[in-house]
Amino acid sequence: MSKTNPGRFFEDYNVGEIIIHAVPRTISGGERAMYHALYPARSALFSSDEFARACGLPASPMDDLATFHTVFGKTVPDVSLNAVANLGYAEGRWHLPVYPGDTLTSESEVIGVKQNSNGKSGVVWVRTTGRNQSDDVVLSYVRWVMVRKRGDGAAPEPVIPELAKVVSADQLIVPAGLDFSGYDFALAGEPHRLSDYAIGEVIDHVDGVTVEEAEHMLATRLWQNTAKVHFDATNRPDGKRLIYGGHVISLARALSFNGLANAQMIVALNGGAHASPCFAGDTVRAWSEVLDIAKTGAPGVGAVRLRLVATKGAAGVLRGEDGKYDPDVLLDLDYWALMPV
Amino acid sequence: MSKTNPGRFFEDYNVGEIIIHAVPRTISGGERAMYHALYPARSALFSSDEFARACGLPASPMDDLATFHTVFGKTVPDVSLNAVANLGYAEGRWHLPVYPGDTLTSESEVIGVKQNSNGKSGVVWVRTTGRNQSDDVVLSYVRWVMVRKRGDGAAPEPVIPELAKVVSADQLIVPAGLDFSGYDFALAGEPHRLSDYAIGEVIDHVDGVTVEEAEHMLATRLWQNTAKVHFDATNRPDGKRLIYGGHVISLARALSFNGLANAQMIVALNGGAHASPCFAGDTVRAWSEVLDIAKTGAPGVGAVRLRLVATKGAAGVLRGEDGKYDPDVLLDLDYWALMPV
Amino acid sequence: MSKTNPGRFFEDYNVGEIIIHAVPRTISGGERAMYHALYPARSALFSSDEFARACGLPASPMDDLATFHTVFGKTVPDVSLNAVANLGYAEGRWHLPVYPGDTLTSESEVIGVKQNSNGKSGVVWVRTTGRNQSDDVVLSYVRWVMVRKRGDGAAPEPVIPELAKVVSADQLIVPAGLDFSGYDFALAGEPHRLSDYAIGEVIDHVDGVTVEEAEHMLATRLWQNTAKVHFDATNRPDGKRLIYGGHVISLARALSFNGLANAQMIVALNGGAHASPCFAGDTVRAWSEVLDIAKTGAPGVGAVRLRLVATKGAAGVLRGEDGKYDPDVLLDLDYWALMPV
Repeated sequence: MSKTNPGRFFEDYNVGEIIIHAVPRTISGGERAMYHALYPARSALFSSDEFARACGLPASPMDDLATFHTVFGKTVPDVSLNAVANLGYAEGRWHLPVYPGDTLTSESEVIGVKQNSNGKSGVVWVRTTGRNQSDDVVLSYVRWVMVRKRGDGAAPEPVIPELAKVVSADQLIVPAGLDFSGYDFALAGEPHRLSDYAIGEVIDHVDGVTVEEAEHMLATRLWQNTAKVHFDATNRPDGKRLIYGGHVISLARALSFNGLANAQMIVALNGGAHASPCFAGDTVRAWSEVLDIAKTGAPGVGAVRLRLVATKGAAGVLRGEDGKYDPDVLLDLDYWALMPV
Repeated sequence: MSKTNPGRFFEDYNVGEIIIHAVPRTISGGERAMYHALYPARSALFSSDEFARACGLPASPMDDLATFHTVFGKTVPDVSLNAVANLGYAEGRWHLPVYPGDTLTSESEVIGVKQNSNGKSGVVWVRTTGRNQSDDVVLSYVRWVMVRKRGDGAAPEPVIPELAKVVSADQLIVPAGLDFSGYDFALAGEPHRLSDYAIGEVIDHVDGVTVEEAEHMLATRLWQNTAKVHFDATNRPDGKRLIYGGHVISLARALSFNGLANAQMIVALNGGAHASPCFAGDTVRAWSEVLDIAKTGAPGVGAVRLRLVATKGAAGVLRGEDGKYDPDVLLDLDYWALMPV
Repeated sequence: MSKTNPGRFFEDYNVGEIIIHAVPRTISGGERAMYHALYPARSALFSSDEFARACGLPASPMDDLATFHTVFGKTVPDVSLNAVANLGYAEGRWHLPVYPGDTLTSESEVIGVKQNSNGKSGVVWVRTTGRNQSDDVVLSYVRWVMVRKRGDGAAPEPVIPELAKVVSADQLIVPAGLDFSGYDFALAGEPHRLSDYAIGEVIDHVDGVTVEEAEHMLATRLWQNTAKVHFDATNRPDGKRLIYGGHVISLARALSFNGLANAQMIVALNGGAHASPCFAGDTVRAWSEVLDIAKTGAPGVGAVRLRLVATKGAAGVLRGEDGKYDPDVLLDLDYWALMPV
């Protein structure tokens, strides 16, 4: 009997099944520091305990995307080891901030399966939930991937989940106690409040980062994501290592500080596409488009829905006339963040 | 008078001498996080405080190899600055887990010397002991290296220590309180318990990592190992930096999670050879062979003796017909780990 | 209206103005560990809580240069985004050690402006002050940079601050409680005390480090320094990324352990010049010259004034016959450190 994990194939997913993912992980100030070394992250709420306390939180939480990567990384051996493609995200919501000292676990429910017409693969939908040591949900999101079939058995009955195109503003969860009424714009780095942004506005975040192999591997290992393609240069015929899509998400989000310094906490992930693969040597830039603006019940706290695009090309360019992503576009992410009104 | 450390030569080692190594080091969650970023380490006991507590420990300890590297790194300026080769390890035992907040020191006793017949170098044996801030031993091991002679003086009387080929199972030290009777195999990542492994079984750990210069230098500095060959590309005629052998040990051990996820704590180092040098660009893989299986007195805790091989080639290949290591083999390590029975 | 920060131009600096820099930053054991991974730093006071306590401090503080980089990094978006050159430092003093858990902020007062004769740029002097969460000053220093003009308006009245060539020994601030009377030279790594050094003595620190892109970017991001030239390979015509000068400072200072292991705390920065740019692939070495020796009022604590030179060439070589820096010289730094007498 082989002792190693061969990964699951399309046939191994049954709607309704709950998959408990290994390995639980305790987060510390070390992971915080690594996040700041790996990405040009500057959001004040995730940088300073004092700033976070002035906003009503007990301390500076882990970056919301660090929580995402930690929860996501655990799903890789069970969900994406034999995946051909990561197709999409939906209904992502951050329920609770994560603080140094918290221990995160992750589990997924299979909520949909649909075999492809070629009979060689199929789409699997899972709803993944991350919890802390008190068993409180910190994050949940739906992801769907294309997975290879092991054999040529009959197709299962297709189950396609109904997913919200967007998390509606009234479903956003504002962390308990969050209060932006005394928000310090000077310390945060920019004067722009929610009312300064207009729906449809496009922001070029100007800065670029040329990515190195060592960096994306450090990041991907930090989240205990074990997918071979990120680490083994002999895995692809072209000798390239594919950069973990989450690395591009964090890089683009950190670059978006320049123009969106006050888009502090990510509270929802509406959708996202990894439009093209990213490789070491690529210079990654980012731009954002304001998609929506909303109120919340918390003092001084509003919400902004943003399209975040990571690109090797020009700001504002997303799709060609054929409707396909411009080849320079790496990531098209749709999320809600909290911002002082 | 030169202020810099010229290192010791063969003549400078006297059997019975105790060498106090600089520099003491306090470990924190930062070193833990770096370890997880540098290696694809996933053992649950070293990842989660909650998992460690469920196994009877007060918190998640530092990875046993991080303890080894920290203690070992301190010996480099005194033991291996003028070393021609790192020849072997024996009688390594981990006495106590190390936790964030602990401060480690290191000292070595010279236990053997033997001049080579060429009169230009000799072999030095040292027993190195790592201690924590309470002066409790956390690790001890024997290492022998070949060291250059300074001059052409007479050979000292040879003293060759008698070393155990293997740490016997009854000498393994199980951390106080360790209890695997309620071990959670789902969270740990694999279902295989000690009784699922057979002596002689070979496990291909499947995954590979292509190593980058920045990574091995970050690691080697983290353990305050100052050997020039790891950092200075002008040091060798071929312009290559030699990767610290301990980096290969940690890489191989982390890769061995896939098939040995439940081989949690390393308790003894029976022997080891750095068969070939490793350089940036190499894709490192690993395989293990089960050498022995034993009981311990702790509830639910067994021990497995493993050969861990890091290689650039195929699993299972160790030596050629001439008895020499296959040129693809980088490391051949013999250790004991604790595993749920 | 553009939301991104265009940086300040020469016209935007008014003498007497106070600039509050974003973003506050809480330091933890994570930043400490990263510092040790990025540089071959071994000073015992910054490595071990126990050693620091034996010297009268409550715990091991952050490396003094980590404090410098953290405070400095915050000034970049306000001071050096449109800077043509970083011209000099003066009157730097460390007022208080920084410990894990501290939150640092940074502000600068404009203390001088002088338009260049070409009318296209000018020199700006700022005095930058770093404070902790109790609003106590931890560091202050003067820096001057050459900044581009936005337009062709009239030159402002020149104001050139009078700056001390050297922080005088009686102005050095010794951390409260510091006591080197029981200093452990064996654990610190070298036997040399202040009385072993002579003014004019030159120390070749022997070791070299070949720098990688990933390393200097990790470091520069860790201090939230956002200058494009360090990250974006498309920013310069030659496709090179300029290494943050502070990376070279920390690298050289860490290398100087070999010969100056007991030059523990940096208490003053008298001056400094980044003589030549440093790029990935360069092998950086260091040498020091003893410039002065002084007493302090603290038990067993003396001060040594050092010239620290980072170079790609030979030790002892600083300037050519024309008085210009030798092209191999990267850094010429003048500082005071505390050392056991």
